[in-house]
Amino acid sequence: MTETCLPEPPPEQIRLEAVLHALADPVRLRIVSELATGPHELACQAFGLPVTKSTSTHHFRVLREAGVIRQHRRGTARMSTLRDADLEALFPGLLASVLHGVQAERLRSV
Amino acid sequence: MTETCLPEPPPEQIRLEAVLHALADPVRLRIVSELATGPHELACQAFGLPVTKSTSTHHFRVLREAGVIRQHRRGTARMSTLRDADLEALFPGLLASVLHGVQAERLRSV
Repeated sequence: MTETCLPEPPPEQIRLEAVLHALADPVRLRIVSELATGPHELACQAFGLPVTKSTSTHHFRVLREAGVIRQHRRGTARMSTLRDADLEALFPGLLASVLHGVQAERLRSV
Repeated sequence: MTETCLPEPPPEQIRLEAVLHALADPVRLRIVSELATGPHELACQAFGLPVTKSTSTHHFRVLREAGVIRQHRRGTARMSTLRDADLEALFPGLLASVLHGVQAERLRSV
């Protein structure tokens, strides 16, 4: 089956402000958390997000255009993976501390 | 001289999304970097930001309302300090990795 990658910034064009902006949203933080802790790649519909399909598409695009995730088409599905290696090389520790913060907030709210 | 603290969220009301949003802006990242690397506290006008006074006031307010900085009035000056201890307790490593990212981007752009 052929795979087509959707447009994304190369590592040298990933900007810290754009990454922080992409992460500054509860739905997008949830997507990133699920990609970090679950299977390596997931189809958009697998997330079961509490938003409409077009809002979901928007959130995935913000993450992709910021360089946080990679998306590729596989048949009719759109698969997402985290660009954790790229992010770690550019901003060491950032993604880990954000994911740790998500977990900590979840525990505090229980 | 009397000092008056401006309203700010207590630690338990500081939200990760709000902190990330507050940091997702070049002017606000610059303010945070200067507070982290320079003197412990600074008056707003000491930053020499390339924006108007009202825009500057807006940026400081976003940072304060997100829980990133504390502001207090001293006479006619409005002094700012970083809430680094509060942030470190809530989101360990986050501020350090963001500040490291700012430095890394600065070096890459030279």
